[in-house]
Amino acid sequence: MGALNEGHFLVELENGVKLNCVEPELEEEPETLAIQNAVRVLLQGLNEDINREGLKKTPLRVAKALLHGTKGYKQRANDIVHSALFPEAGLNNAVGHAGGAGGLVIVRDIDLFSYCESCLLPFQIKCHVGYVPSGQRVVGLSKLSRVADVFARRLQDPQRLADEICSALQHGIKPAGAAIVLQCLHIHFPNLESFVLDSSHQGWVKALVRSGSGVFENENADLWCDFLNLLKFRGVNVDKIQMTDATEQCWCPSQSSSSAKLSSMVRSPNQGMVTAVTSILMSLGEDPLRKELIETPSRFVKWLMNFHNTKLENGFGRADPLEASGDISHDREQMHSELNLSFWSQCEHHLLPFYGVVHIGYFCAEGSKPIERDFLQSIVHSYGFKLQVQERLTRQIAETVSSYLGGDVMVVVEADHTCMISRGIEKFGSNTATIAVLGRFSIDPAARAIFLQSIPKTTTT
Amino acid sequence: MGALNEGHFLVELENGVKLNCVEPELEEEPETLAIQNAVRVLLQGLNEDINREGLKKTPLRVAKALLHGTKGYKQRANDIVHSALFPEAGLNNAVGHAGGAGGLVIVRDIDLFSYCESCLLPFQIKCHVGYVPSGQRVVGLSKLSRVADVFARRLQDPQRLADEICSALQHGIKPAGAAIVLQCLHIHFPNLESFVLDSSHQGWVKALVRSGSGVFENENADLWCDFLNLLKFRGVNVDKIQMTDATEQCWCPSQSSSSAKLSSMVRSPNQGMVTAVTSILMSLGEDPLRKELIETPSRFVKWLMNFHNTKLENGFGRADPLEASGDISHDREQMHSELNLSFWSQCEHHLLPFYGVVHIGYFCAEGSKPIERDFLQSIVHSYGFKLQVQERLTRQIAETVSSYLGGDVMVVVEADHTCMISRGIEKFGSNTATIAVLGRFSIDPAARAIFLQSIPKTTTT
Repeated sequence: MGALNEGHFLVELENGVKLNCVEPELEEEPETLAIQNAVRVLLQGLNEDINREGLKKTPLRVAKALLHGTKGYKQRANDIVHSALFPEAGLNNAVGHAGGAGGLVIVRDIDLFSYCESCLLPFQIKCHVGYVPSGQRVVGLSKLSRVADVFARRLQDPQRLADEICSALQHGIKPAGAAIVLQCLHIHFPNLESFVLDSSHQGWVKALVRSGSGVFENENADLWCDFLNLLKFRGVNVDKIQMTDATEQCWCPSQSSSSAKLSSMVRSPNQGMVTAVTSILMSLGEDPLRKELIETPSRFVKWLMNFHNTKLENGFGRADPLEASGDISHDREQMHSELNLSFWSQCEHHLLPFYGVVHIGYFCAEGSKPIERDFLQSIVHSYGFKLQVQERLTRQIAETVSSYLGGDVMVVVEADHTCMISRGIEKFGSNTATIAVLGRFSIDPAARAIFLQSIPKTTTT
Repeated sequence: MGALNEGHFLVELENGVKLNCVEPELEEEPETLAIQNAVRVLLQGLNEDINREGLKKTPLRVAKALLHGTKGYKQRANDIVHSALFPEAGLNNAVGHAGGAGGLVIVRDIDLFSYCESCLLPFQIKCHVGYVPSGQRVVGLSKLSRVADVFARRLQDPQRLADEICSALQHGIKPAGAAIVLQCLHIHFPNLESFVLDSSHQGWVKALVRSGSGVFENENADLWCDFLNLLKFRGVNVDKIQMTDATEQCWCPSQSSSSAKLSSMVRSPNQGMVTAVTSILMSLGEDPLRKELIETPSRFVKWLMNFHNTKLENGFGRADPLEASGDISHDREQMHSELNLSFWSQCEHHLLPFYGVVHIGYFCAEGSKPIERDFLQSIVHSYGFKLQVQERLTRQIAETVSSYLGGDVMVVVEADHTCMISRGIEKFGSNTATIAVLGRFSIDPAARAIFLQSIPKTTTT
């Protein structure tokens, strides 16, 4: 522990102050209480015991997270920019690029998240904001990010979000023009087919949209070329930007055909749950009759019902792992592995998705054969599709696989947690890994190392 | 602007509420007032007019940013973890890895920032936190990030930061063991030599440290192998981790030899400024007599004096750009460019560094020759080394270069702003680009496009 002074640390524990001055009030507010009641209805609809330890505070956590994540409804962009407009001599009062040195200013790669107005799940955004100063004044750079954040923290659609940020900057700064490019990433909905959810976001639903005002009003304006050329440096594939520009169809996978296929497998939405979600929309300050939101509560309930609590035990009997073919020598010295089994799950602490991949390593029991990948994938899906925590998911997969394979099992789960980006902490690139080891793996570090080193390196996001 | 409803937007501007309920109080607190007074002394020491528009609110902005960035002094880690310990059956009460499925849990790639206790500049951190659950309970994953943040938001050294996070988790969660790996990045101090500061952080001072407790107490413990193998997936070069592990020397470039060379060129620190920085340390709740902090005020003042306001005009006369050799045809149709000229500067709104690269494109005036790169670099340095805003820096470079080259000039500045990570907004990967165009570049979009496309693609961080 190096030079750590434990005495100092203990004193600090006693003298510290509370973290959040506003939290006690927040808990008593009518919106918070209404959302908590709605979340209890949802949990009961999922066949969960709302008094079990992991769920007891879930209604409060969900309420806080949602109110924090949609606080943009209570913010106004003009307050932000007006406090940070600086005179800057030499910027021509006319159009910036033609009048002299008053050229384009852009801030690239601003990480944001928003909530999809179609399904209520959070989505991630890389936001690029630009403007051409005018009237001899510039705005503090951080304000471009703050303004974008105000509109992201509402229920949104990518194009509307871009338009609203753009309009707010145009009205607030009165520049020669403002331009917005958004790269949006929406989790794909599970289709129960084998599907790798890796951290490079293959298989995600992507939208690339833009909005412009003033000198950017015309999509073919020369200044758009400058702006897009400055994004190319940062790896943005601007050639694809036109494709979704004029789209009329909703990008949200809850409205795609494969999702419709899935939802037909799910019972028709519980009306009490739908009403509960509608009341959440109202508590956030939204109009549930706005046309984009009318079906949102039932779409969210359909998503949620993927994680309905059911008895799993009789789900595995049918597949026979011993029927697997292949002539691999299956003595106990041979390690087998199945890598990158995809999973979706729903965090029981925040009712938010987490998703990623599972890697399973094992030694075959005497006389048994390697297990089929599809069978392992079905085990992974079964424990994923319920309210979970990653640690428990990892253990449950390990114990179940172990019961088929004789006990020498190692499971690694790598996951992105939506709750790590869509609440106060906003750690965008973070990723969680958990390990469960059984039998030989628990006492043989070399076996663990061989298995871990067989896992392919992921590209960091 | 797509489907934007302007009427809706205007209503919102009028009905919105204030952004930050706590700010008005903060402005009146004695710490805030003391820091503001100290910042005024620093600005005057830099020969700046504290009443000019861009600086008027700088003392308040610096005070708010510093108090926010060091709020860890007022937080206690135990409050955080105690509210989020969840019972999780099946985790063995003994050592996790040997007892069954209760294996390692790690959260990787948590972006943090801290303040260097040696020089008071912010530094960036990629934090990887792990623990082995024990006592049949797990901690909410986001709490690992929050605990790390408490200790990062203080004046720190990488090894102490790792030790403090580790100790807090060990005391708070009482796991079988806790492990921390930190990758820290500190801006290099300018050495006035040609030096590329690119966004891949080449040339930055890096420290890679770790700390372990419980089952991670022994640096050669098997569990460290598991932990480090799980980091390898994410591109962490763990082979280098040992190198800085037992280092006794300070990593901060303010204490390196090249910095000492630089500081010998700077006048000896203004005692009033040093006293002002000492008072800031006290306002943050630090003990300025703590041995690591004794020289910090004078080191920070030395850094700051790089940005002392001096008349620049007579700085360029000596170099003669027309002496440049080379047989490039220099008619007005031939575009020349100098890419990746490095710069350091100090944001006048927050007294925080911003740094990056400048790209200059130009057409030679009739009869003149291309200008020497060193001369352009000296112009860039001269306008960088003062309190600045990026827009003004861009314009000043363009206007100065133009006076030597006949008017057809384009300047692109790409910069990372410390103020975008070390305050409330914390946008870690963001990067700002500004353009100034003069003469032909302001009316010829094709020329702008050719120049912009000649700029090499940066790797996003």
